[in-house]
Amino acid sequence: MSTRPRMSDLAANAGVSVSTVSRVLNGKPGIREDTRRAVLQAMADLGYNREKLQQRTGVVGVIVPELFNPSFPAFAERLDAMFRPTHHTVITAAGPLGANEATCIATLLELGIDGVVSISGAAADTEADLIPYQRLAEAGVPTIFINGHTTKLTSAFVNCSDAEAVSASVAHLRSLGHERIGLAVGPARFLPTQRKSSAFLELGFGKESIERTIFTAEGGRVAAAKLLDAGHTAIVCGSDLMALGVIREAHSRDLRVPGDLSVIGFDDSPLMAFTDPALTTVRQPVHAMCEAAVSGLARAMDGNSPDGTELTFRPDLIIRQSTGPKA
Amino acid sequence: MSTRPRMSDLAANAGVSVSTVSRVLNGKPGIREDTRRAVLQAMADLGYNREKLQQRTGVVGVIVPELFNPSFPAFAERLDAMFRPTHHTVITAAGPLGANEATCIATLLELGIDGVVSISGAAADTEADLIPYQRLAEAGVPTIFINGHTTKLTSAFVNCSDAEAVSASVAHLRSLGHERIGLAVGPARFLPTQRKSSAFLELGFGKESIERTIFTAEGGRVAAAKLLDAGHTAIVCGSDLMALGVIREAHSRDLRVPGDLSVIGFDDSPLMAFTDPALTTVRQPVHAMCEAAVSGLARAMDGNSPDGTELTFRPDLIIRQSTGPKA
Repeated sequence: MSTRPRMSDLAANAGVSVSTVSRVLNGKPGIREDTRRAVLQAMADLGYNREKLQQRTGVVGVIVPELFNPSFPAFAERLDAMFRPTHHTVITAAGPLGANEATCIATLLELGIDGVVSISGAAADTEADLIPYQRLAEAGVPTIFINGHTTKLTSAFVNCSDAEAVSASVAHLRSLGHERIGLAVGPARFLPTQRKSSAFLELGFGKESIERTIFTAEGGRVAAAKLLDAGHTAIVCGSDLMALGVIREAHSRDLRVPGDLSVIGFDDSPLMAFTDPALTTVRQPVHAMCEAAVSGLARAMDGNSPDGTELTFRPDLIIRQSTGPKA
Repeated sequence: MSTRPRMSDLAANAGVSVSTVSRVLNGKPGIREDTRRAVLQAMADLGYNREKLQQRTGVVGVIVPELFNPSFPAFAERLDAMFRPTHHTVITAAGPLGANEATCIATLLELGIDGVVSISGAAADTEADLIPYQRLAEAGVPTIFINGHTTKLTSAFVNCSDAEAVSASVAHLRSLGHERIGLAVGPARFLPTQRKSSAFLELGFGKESIERTIFTAEGGRVAAAKLLDAGHTAIVCGSDLMALGVIREAHSRDLRVPGDLSVIGFDDSPLMAFTDPALTTVRQPVHAMCEAAVSGLARAMDGNSPDGTELTFRPDLIIRQSTGPKA
C-alpha cells in the first residue's frame, strides 16, 4: 500500500497550486520566497517531510483501452524498452472500452507509481469522466497522454495527426482514380473520429460517405456493407482491425481487393505486412511518439509542470497491396 | 510501498513451512494444535498481526516475456476479463526475453500484489534463475505458471500439450501426402522446444529435420531457409510468428504456399485468419487455460497450497489455407 501523502493537501493548506508545491519540493527556480515559505510551513503543519513526498517507486503505469488491438501492446512494448535505461519498470493496465479505466487508475495510485502514460484513454473520449486523472494530478503523479487531448487537464499530449492521415490516404486514392471514397471510423465521441471526420469533410466529401461504427474488424464489416451498397470504390479506415473487417466483407461479396475495392488502414500495427492482401495503411510514428512521451514524463516527474501543449506527429502512408487503380 | 511482512520470517521463527503459516492464518483444517500455537507465538514474537498479514491489494500481476507476439497480450486480455468479476485488477509486466523478469517480480512484490500468473516465463526456460519466484513464495504471494513447468517450485502449472500439437500437425500433413516434414522451433533451453522436439523425433523424423532458432518471424525465415535447402515440403512451427517468417521466406524464393510448401503455426493468436494465406495453426485453448489459472490462483490466494500438479490442455488444429496436398 502506498503511504505517499497527497500534494493536493499541501497545496490546499498553503493556498497554492499542486504544481507550485511540486516546484518547491524539487527546488525549481521562479518561486517567490513567501510562496516557498508557505509550502514549507504547510509541510510542517501537516507533518510531512520531503523524503516521504519525494519517495519514488521506480514504476511507471501505462494505461491502454485493451490489449487485443495490436496497436496498444506495440506502444506499451516501446515505452517499456525506453523506460528501462532510466531504471523504471513499466506495468500495463487495460481498461476495456474505458469501463475499467477509473479502477485501473485507482489501483495504480494505491500501489504507488511515479508517473502514468495514458494511451487512447479518457482524454481521447469527449464524454469520459476525467476525475480519475484529476486525482492522479492531486497526488502529484504526472500523466502524459498519447492520442488524446482535453483542455480540462493540464498535462502534455502526444498525438498522431488525424488530419494528415486522412489527407495522405485520400490523395493516394485520388491519384489511383478513385472518386467515391468512404470513411469508416469508430464512435463519434472519440476525438480521433471527430478529427478524421472533419478532415474528410474538408476534402470535399459528404456526410453520407462517413460510417461511424466501432474500431474492431466487426465494426469494419458493418461500415463496409453500407459504404459498398452506396457505391464506394475505396474505403479509408480508422484502425487496421477495421480495414481487415472491410476486406473480409469485400471477400464475402466476391469482390477483389484491390481490384474491386481499395482499402487503407490506420496504425500500421504489427503483422499488417502479412495480411491478405498486405495492408496499405497509415503508420503512426510509434517510436518518435513514445520518445516524446518518455521525455515529457521524465520532465514532469522531475517537478516541471507540463503546460498543456499538444505535440502532433506526422504519420507516413505505407503503400502495400490493398490499394490499386479504380476499375 | 508494500508494508506486507514476509510469511517466510514467521515460518522460520515457528520452524514450519510457509504453506503451514498460510494455512494457519487462513483457518484451514488439518493443522496440529501445537503447530498452530507455534505460528501464533511467532506472530506475537515478531510483532505481526493477522490483519497486516492478510492485507489484500486486490491486484494480480501477469508476467509475460514480451507484448509483440500477439499470443501474450491475448492471454493477458483474457485473464484481465476473468479476474474482473472477483474485483481484482490485473497489471501486466513484460520482461523481454527473460532479461527483465527478476526486476518485474521485485517491482510487483514491492508494490504489493495478491498473486501472480507467469506466462512462458522462467518456468518455461530450463536455464532460468528461479530465485525471484522463490522470493514470491516466501512472501506468501502464490504464482500459477502458464506454459512452463519445473519441479523446483511448488506451484500449479497450466500447459498446452506440445506433444499433441506436433502429432496433430504431422498427422494432417501426412494425410496430405507430405513425408519430408521439418520442425522450426525456438531456442533449445525452452521447455516447449524440448517437448515439441521429443514428440517430433518419436514420430520417426531425424534430428536433421529440426531447426532451432528464435520464436520470431526472423527466426522462422532462418529456419525455413535451411529446411527448404534440405528438401522439406512442409514445416511445423513453434509459433505463429515463425510460421509467418517461413511463408515470407517461401515467397521470397517464388515458392507458393501451400502449392510448393505447407506451413503450420502454433498459438492461433489473434489475426491469423487474416494472413496471406490464412494460417493453418494449432490453437492453444486460451480461455480454458486461463480459467484453470484463475481458479488455481484463487484457491492459492485463499491459503490452499498448490501441489505442483501440471494441468495439460489439448490444443485444436485449425485448418485454414497454408496447408495443401504435396505437389
